[in-house]
Amino acid sequence: MHNSFKPQNRILMGPGPSNVHPKVLEALSKAPLGHLDPQFIELMDDIKLLLKYTFKTESDATFVISGPGSLGMEASLVNLIEHGDKIIVCVGGYFANRMTQIVEKIGGQVVVVKETWGRAIDPQKLEDALKQNPDTKVVAFVHAETSTGALSNIKLLSEIAHKHNCLVVADTVTSLGTTEIYVDQWDLDAVYSCSQKGLSCTAGMSPITFSERAVHHIKKRKTPVQSWFNDLNLLLGYWSGTDKRIYHHTAPSNQFYGLHEALLILKDEGIENAWRRHKENSGKFISKLKQIGLEPLVPEGERIPNLTAVKVPEGIDEAKARSELLNKHNLEIGAGLGELAGKIWRIGLMGYNSNEKMIEFCISALKDVLKK
Amino acid sequence: MHNSFKPQNRILMGPGPSNVHPKVLEALSKAPLGHLDPQFIELMDDIKLLLKYTFKTESDATFVISGPGSLGMEASLVNLIEHGDKIIVCVGGYFANRMTQIVEKIGGQVVVVKETWGRAIDPQKLEDALKQNPDTKVVAFVHAETSTGALSNIKLLSEIAHKHNCLVVADTVTSLGTTEIYVDQWDLDAVYSCSQKGLSCTAGMSPITFSERAVHHIKKRKTPVQSWFNDLNLLLGYWSGTDKRIYHHTAPSNQFYGLHEALLILKDEGIENAWRRHKENSGKFISKLKQIGLEPLVPEGERIPNLTAVKVPEGIDEAKARSELLNKHNLEIGAGLGELAGKIWRIGLMGYNSNEKMIEFCISALKDVLKK
Repeated sequence: MHNSFKPQNRILMGPGPSNVHPKVLEALSKAPLGHLDPQFIELMDDIKLLLKYTFKTESDATFVISGPGSLGMEASLVNLIEHGDKIIVCVGGYFANRMTQIVEKIGGQVVVVKETWGRAIDPQKLEDALKQNPDTKVVAFVHAETSTGALSNIKLLSEIAHKHNCLVVADTVTSLGTTEIYVDQWDLDAVYSCSQKGLSCTAGMSPITFSERAVHHIKKRKTPVQSWFNDLNLLLGYWSGTDKRIYHHTAPSNQFYGLHEALLILKDEGIENAWRRHKENSGKFISKLKQIGLEPLVPEGERIPNLTAVKVPEGIDEAKARSELLNKHNLEIGAGLGELAGKIWRIGLMGYNSNEKMIEFCISALKDVLKK
Repeated sequence: MHNSFKPQNRILMGPGPSNVHPKVLEALSKAPLGHLDPQFIELMDDIKLLLKYTFKTESDATFVISGPGSLGMEASLVNLIEHGDKIIVCVGGYFANRMTQIVEKIGGQVVVVKETWGRAIDPQKLEDALKQNPDTKVVAFVHAETSTGALSNIKLLSEIAHKHNCLVVADTVTSLGTTEIYVDQWDLDAVYSCSQKGLSCTAGMSPITFSERAVHHIKKRKTPVQSWFNDLNLLLGYWSGTDKRIYHHTAPSNQFYGLHEALLILKDEGIENAWRRHKENSGKFISKLKQIGLEPLVPEGERIPNLTAVKVPEGIDEAKARSELLNKHNLEIGAGLGELAGKIWRIGLMGYNSNEKMIEFCISALKDVLKK
């Protein structure tokens, strides 16, 4: 290639990235600032405030990991878990399974609560596992399982975990900004997300928040946090404090401009309005899917409002259909992952893209591709 | 604040970030692509080719870590080092010291070869340390120590390390694109850099390359790599292979657009020409600094061509001077770090900023601020 890159202007209706508001794209290309410039520190403070609003938390340990959501997953786990600690992970899909891989890599002892892919986690199973494993320190789960389209009741899961004196790690990668989340009310201790889904920014950042209880726990660890880049103690030195910020890493200024703009847009709409919009559009979309003979994988009441897993109809070559959507309609939707590979499509209506025009466009493209 | 952010158009002449070409800023705001879009995979392949050119390597394990340079540092060390492994780190500044902190966090046994801050590493000290520690597995050093302005002869350090059968980790955060580096010829095993200095892109990415020997070593590890996000085995699944890429994390598409454009600009100039330009401008800058009574910290022959550490003249409040440069002249230069805090300024002439106009601007602003 070796020429300036000219990306297609794709319609991104997969599991993320999603399309972003033109103002977000514009923000990305503003003049870069130094990571300790007073003006940049103000921007960081403003991002913190906007993230507190978005996560519904008052915790001051609310900031951005300078890397994708999966780095936020690793940061949450590596801070809370010490070598040998027992952790229960509720696994109903690919991304919860990734949590178990990370825990194993950092030397934690994993107990898996297994759920059927495509279903919300059954709270009773967590309760049973905690009774059988009274030495559990941490319980981890995914709010909106991106690989299956299933939404779990993490308010209830958190309640159960705390009854057994556990800390709680919640993955909100696919739910933040689109689905009700009350970090403080639900007593979640470490919560991470990403920038490119419900927040409608470009990929590469992981908003994260730790409860006071989690920060206290981390400060009292017997062993050092195994990662330097993700060490909360060091990160808070850069993100907190009224006086002087302690340099940690060089923050990606231009990415932060984009995130700031995206968070402003969300706040201007009002997060409760955004939740409502995603829910309404999900309902409309699913009824239209049914009209063209497509069925959602996940039962009603357990569906992620901004990501619908659709069963691939019999006789259809799913990869060929996706490829045709991409090449003929310029539309990206997602394939199945793990044990759902080949069996489902994952269609996102997130943030900027959750609107009637996108629903119509997607339904009409699907109709065209499936008619053969 | 809570309004769209309007950054000052700063002149960035600190240790990085540096200003970037308008074409790079423009590239950042192009339409995002999915991380598995065929067009995006082509872009990744092109970035790989351009990085091979930039690093002077043929290794296929050449790619980008989706986070800042310090994450690249952690990625290099966490892949090469297993718990209990002995590693020698040559420390003549703040960033080499960070390497020792990371090694300790991942459970390696650190031996420090100590050098005076502001001097190149003395190869004899490494030779002696290796004789005293024949069980050393890895030797790590910094090419251009960002905290002091000193450039080490890493070709020679690498030769010594390999004589003792060690793998070599080289930090080229402040040298890539500005200073001669021949990764293959110099036999460097893990080399990482950043995007916001010599490459003149925005911050947030870490170009990295591993030798075939390093990849082999990692594949033969007795214990798993302690990090999931930085695990080379997983990263290569996403960055390599002619057929199908295995999803790892969601790559920051728009950041990659910027890096691609920045690498193209470097290639268009020719990397040898860029090296020469930085060297020439460094000479001109230092002679002008001397004319206004400022002295470089580092002796001739050991200076980083794109980053000059300048001694703060007696009687000058260094923080006040920097603040005046910023507020009156819109010019950012860097403070001293660690044991050089308060004693030096660090002035960068990197990539897009390494030109006579910037030299004149900086000298004239310094003159103005120092005249009082």
